[in-house]
Amino acid sequence: MFDNIDHLAVNSIRTLSIDAVEAANSGHPGLPMGAAPMAYTLWTKHLNANPKNSEWFNRDRFVLSAGHGSAMLYSLLHLSGYEVAIEDLKNFRQLGSKVPGHPEVHMTDGVEATTGPLGQGVANGVGMAMAEAHLAATYNQEGFPLVDHFTYVLCSDGDLQEGISHEAVSLAGHLKLGKLIMLYDSNDVQLDGPTDKAFSEDIQKRFEAYGWDYARVEDGNNLQDIDEAIEQAKTVTDQPTIIEVRTEIGYGAENAGTAEVHGAPLGPDGTKYAKESYDWKGENFTVPEEVYERFAETIGQNGAEKEEAWNELVSDYQQEFAELGAQFEQGISGELPEDWAESLPVYEEDPEGAATRGISGEVINAIAEVLPNLWGGSADLSGSNKTTIDGAGDFSPDHYAGRNIWYGVREHAMASALNGILLHGGTKSFVSTFFVFSDYLRPAVRLAALSQIPSIYVLTHDSVAVGEDGPTHEPVEHLSSFRGMPNVAMMRPADANEVAAAWKVALESETRPTLLALTRQDVPVLPNTAELAPQYVEKGAYVLSPAAEQPDGLLLATGSEVQLALAAQKELLEKGHDVVVVSMPSFELFELQTDEYKDSVLPKEIKNRVAIEMGSTFGWDRYVGPEGRIIALDRFGESGPGEEVIKDLGFTVENVVEEYLSLVD
Amino acid sequence: MFDNIDHLAVNSIRTLSIDAVEAANSGHPGLPMGAAPMAYTLWTKHLNANPKNSEWFNRDRFVLSAGHGSAMLYSLLHLSGYEVAIEDLKNFRQLGSKVPGHPEVHMTDGVEATTGPLGQGVANGVGMAMAEAHLAATYNQEGFPLVDHFTYVLCSDGDLQEGISHEAVSLAGHLKLGKLIMLYDSNDVQLDGPTDKAFSEDIQKRFEAYGWDYARVEDGNNLQDIDEAIEQAKTVTDQPTIIEVRTEIGYGAENAGTAEVHGAPLGPDGTKYAKESYDWKGENFTVPEEVYERFAETIGQNGAEKEEAWNELVSDYQQEFAELGAQFEQGISGELPEDWAESLPVYEEDPEGAATRGISGEVINAIAEVLPNLWGGSADLSGSNKTTIDGAGDFSPDHYAGRNIWYGVREHAMASALNGILLHGGTKSFVSTFFVFSDYLRPAVRLAALSQIPSIYVLTHDSVAVGEDGPTHEPVEHLSSFRGMPNVAMMRPADANEVAAAWKVALESETRPTLLALTRQDVPVLPNTAELAPQYVEKGAYVLSPAAEQPDGLLLATGSEVQLALAAQKELLEKGHDVVVVSMPSFELFELQTDEYKDSVLPKEIKNRVAIEMGSTFGWDRYVGPEGRIIALDRFGESGPGEEVIKDLGFTVENVVEEYLSLVD
Repeated sequence: MFDNIDHLAVNSIRTLSIDAVEAANSGHPGLPMGAAPMAYTLWTKHLNANPKNSEWFNRDRFVLSAGHGSAMLYSLLHLSGYEVAIEDLKNFRQLGSKVPGHPEVHMTDGVEATTGPLGQGVANGVGMAMAEAHLAATYNQEGFPLVDHFTYVLCSDGDLQEGISHEAVSLAGHLKLGKLIMLYDSNDVQLDGPTDKAFSEDIQKRFEAYGWDYARVEDGNNLQDIDEAIEQAKTVTDQPTIIEVRTEIGYGAENAGTAEVHGAPLGPDGTKYAKESYDWKGENFTVPEEVYERFAETIGQNGAEKEEAWNELVSDYQQEFAELGAQFEQGISGELPEDWAESLPVYEEDPEGAATRGISGEVINAIAEVLPNLWGGSADLSGSNKTTIDGAGDFSPDHYAGRNIWYGVREHAMASALNGILLHGGTKSFVSTFFVFSDYLRPAVRLAALSQIPSIYVLTHDSVAVGEDGPTHEPVEHLSSFRGMPNVAMMRPADANEVAAAWKVALESETRPTLLALTRQDVPVLPNTAELAPQYVEKGAYVLSPAAEQPDGLLLATGSEVQLALAAQKELLEKGHDVVVVSMPSFELFELQTDEYKDSVLPKEIKNRVAIEMGSTFGWDRYVGPEGRIIALDRFGESGPGEEVIKDLGFTVENVVEEYLSLVD
Repeated sequence: MFDNIDHLAVNSIRTLSIDAVEAANSGHPGLPMGAAPMAYTLWTKHLNANPKNSEWFNRDRFVLSAGHGSAMLYSLLHLSGYEVAIEDLKNFRQLGSKVPGHPEVHMTDGVEATTGPLGQGVANGVGMAMAEAHLAATYNQEGFPLVDHFTYVLCSDGDLQEGISHEAVSLAGHLKLGKLIMLYDSNDVQLDGPTDKAFSEDIQKRFEAYGWDYARVEDGNNLQDIDEAIEQAKTVTDQPTIIEVRTEIGYGAENAGTAEVHGAPLGPDGTKYAKESYDWKGENFTVPEEVYERFAETIGQNGAEKEEAWNELVSDYQQEFAELGAQFEQGISGELPEDWAESLPVYEEDPEGAATRGISGEVINAIAEVLPNLWGGSADLSGSNKTTIDGAGDFSPDHYAGRNIWYGVREHAMASALNGILLHGGTKSFVSTFFVFSDYLRPAVRLAALSQIPSIYVLTHDSVAVGEDGPTHEPVEHLSSFRGMPNVAMMRPADANEVAAAWKVALESETRPTLLALTRQDVPVLPNTAELAPQYVEKGAYVLSPAAEQPDGLLLATGSEVQLALAAQKELLEKGHDVVVVSMPSFELFELQTDEYKDSVLPKEIKNRVAIEMGSTFGWDRYVGPEGRIIALDRFGESGPGEEVIKDLGFTVENVVEEYLSLVD
């Protein structure tokens, strides 16, 4: 079934990868040399994907979780006919090249996920398989398998050591994601040395414990065995499958099978040695014509045909199921339905108000009506996070159409799965946990930001007002920690109307993740936000309450502290000080505004400024200036009733007034 | 073997916990009611600990990883005779109380670790067991089992879902930590509902896959069965053991076995119902005298006797093995040997210099000579992090005395294990990975900071100068993200002498973790740091190069950018601008200085200020003021040769000079 051209093709992947790493004098040749046979077999015999249209929706997904093997992925993309030229490979890892050191989804045609930080690719794959299952259950009809594809992940020993891989694998097993297939490049070597210095798991037993099907290919160079294992895995419909493929890292190199070949170029002699061992005759960066042909007649031809057939299927589907068809198209487009925002609730001024997490729950339920492709879940805190879509059912093996996802206490896999869900496309989605536990999922936020994925994080219990649970559960530094991250919007709405507006920002974002920090405790619905929030929250900061006449100072606040600023404004006016209250739901969005707008909100000539926020002072100086004051927290919180903690830590109207007075004196 | 008093004692734990939660009107009664029997059996029949001296070094450690069950732990501490009074229990979760919502090691007598953020307690326990094994191998002699104790962890379903628990358990299995015993409170319920909504692992198979011994107690109320399972587990010397104890959450409550009893007070009626089901006659917060007596004659008496015998053993040991004995004492004291700092290397000015990670490696090896109790490791990057202690051997089941720990690619478990190692006491230790992957271990840094543990993190490859590996591997926001965290010292030394000084700060710290950000690339040894760094690095910022005469501006920089500031200073002087160069290795340490010192370094009257750092601008405004400039990065990095990336992103002398000139114009 496999012939000499196949073997030549495998060696072409190896030599292109070696050449790319040599040219860059940087990179990881070991994985490509060892894993080329499994990758080749998968791509040419199984992967339904169209190199001429990498965006074809029903393609199989392939995630290289071991992102350090990027040279192999780029070689495969080139050989298959994606927009990766030989010239690109020659510029591997160079400034301005489209093939960076580790795969980046927004940079390179055909790359499905940004990988490199280990373990996350596994969870991305789980998210993609979840999206596939969800869309299939929602849209497929008898005779119309509209969404019907596999998700493949290629992972390494390092991936399987990361906690996130355990979380993701456990979740995938629980969800019985039968169309998820993982190829494990099992080679007993990792960066620092032999794997057995740190790792001695029984992989089969581990994966079976998680509900996976396990298969093993003893000889990672045997294309036939690999092919059969993948074929077999595709027939297992109620369990994800891991295929442990035993390989030799750096196969063919003089130092094959050692850590030395993992992450350093082979050098001229090493390259010569390896190519001789492959009996390779070609010049650097050359590929025999018959190899290109083989790729063209396998993945190339297959992909084109499959896409064409699918396009016809979709067309027929849309005739037969007009409404669902339109919805499906809408979902794929990533666009929101026209007028969707009209469903956002508007709240009247209310001194009692409600917790912003509760309001967020109302918003989710309101928009879920008009956004049928919105789904999401929580890391075992949906009741506290208020993220349940009422009546929409749970996403489970018995009911993949359910829109409420039970992620379990697995924050990191949850957030990486969300990235995978959104990379897959077709839906909008969010995840939720306590704000303090955003630390657990931070690596996935970074990859969302870098990959320009509009992930949404509902992060409740956003301050020391959490109260009795104490400092382990009270975020302090989390606002500032995300404000420094590029390409995220960290939002902390002040009341119900700001929550609705923040959700609008989050859902309309196309290339930026949004973090919503929401209160546990009730906060009033503030005067004028019904009118102002829909216009100004997206600008990051705005004058919520202007001065009575001539302003002599500014009070800046976010979230639950805006009410303190408003109350202090009144008291100060009585004492003869006329101040403006600025609500600042997002520093990052504010920074994106024109200087003119920024100056209108924070006029340079007003130097008397007090900021109020139940978080770290860090980063506020930009807005209060050297003469301003910051009422904040550079310490951990306390355990006690929320109201008492807030008061004890100085977040009172009295204190704001006092601070302002001492400032102007 | 167990009598009525034992059952009365179990119910005393339950009722005290119920009463504490009721009084607070907040907390988690479910775990204490279900897990009291296993906790009671462990504490009174097995746990070697002295309630009258919670610091006794050779005590068994007990970590309540499921920290939300704090009421049970506080009840046990009270009943056993630790410094937790009934009055304290009545003040559970109140402001100023010494029994906060979740256990905090520095707050409450007898608490061994700060827990609540799930999964970390498991890894803390692994670290404690590692420390025990290491100290035993290092100090024990024939007939002198100086260090010889068990580490017990009590965990919940939620703990076992967190990725860190998988990492930690995999590591513990690999390391064959036979004296680690985990009691798993297995009750099929978690916060959001039944566990099977999100979790369907075969726990036995999972743990066996990781090399653990597995035992099961079917009836979690059967003290005899629990006792026998623990007894048996203690005999398994070459594997850690998990005992899955099947319990009913909220045992005895009307809503026992449901998620409702997990985290909310029972209320007056619910309390009445539960106490009736226990046939409990006493008033709230009362304990029958015979129960106190039972604790006194078991854990109380046993602990006192064991400690006394151990003290004699130590005394004999010190006679027989004077040098080792002195070393052991020194380790336990936590003090550093006198004059240890003399071993710190001093470097002469050198325009070539070296990577600060390499220097850090030299420092580690230099101090390892005089600090025999220093050990540490890396998450599979010791070669890159330069953290190997030469010739000190690997910490492994065959050689627990080894001082180099192979953590595998398990950053989070590594950092939580480090917390456990240091909480255990007896050694100094550090961990290492790439700075960008500090995101993976961030939750453990937070708990170190909150718990006042002087953990040391060696974080190399600290900027976009990483180069070819690209933005996935290039930290940008990490400096700012840690600078906002309370009670940490984020340090970024500029050269070799600052590295040595930073290590001194880290090792001398008693209550604060230290993060060391170190370069991949070479940086020069700067003029005068040999003299200045040892004096001033600990102050966080200092004048490295004063103005020639009258300063008209400041250049502030950290790490590898200090060399740019120095070069720019020269060029600017030629152009008639006399500026000061300030090196700022740590914002947080600088903030701790007197206003006088701060003003001497950053004189208020000098408004022309330019900061240079290859990280986020966020947080620099405090030091440059509204008229200053920040040459930094509010974007992700690039893949390309490091030198080119640095230049492309504007980190050149030319650019610093230009920015300063445009500022003063």
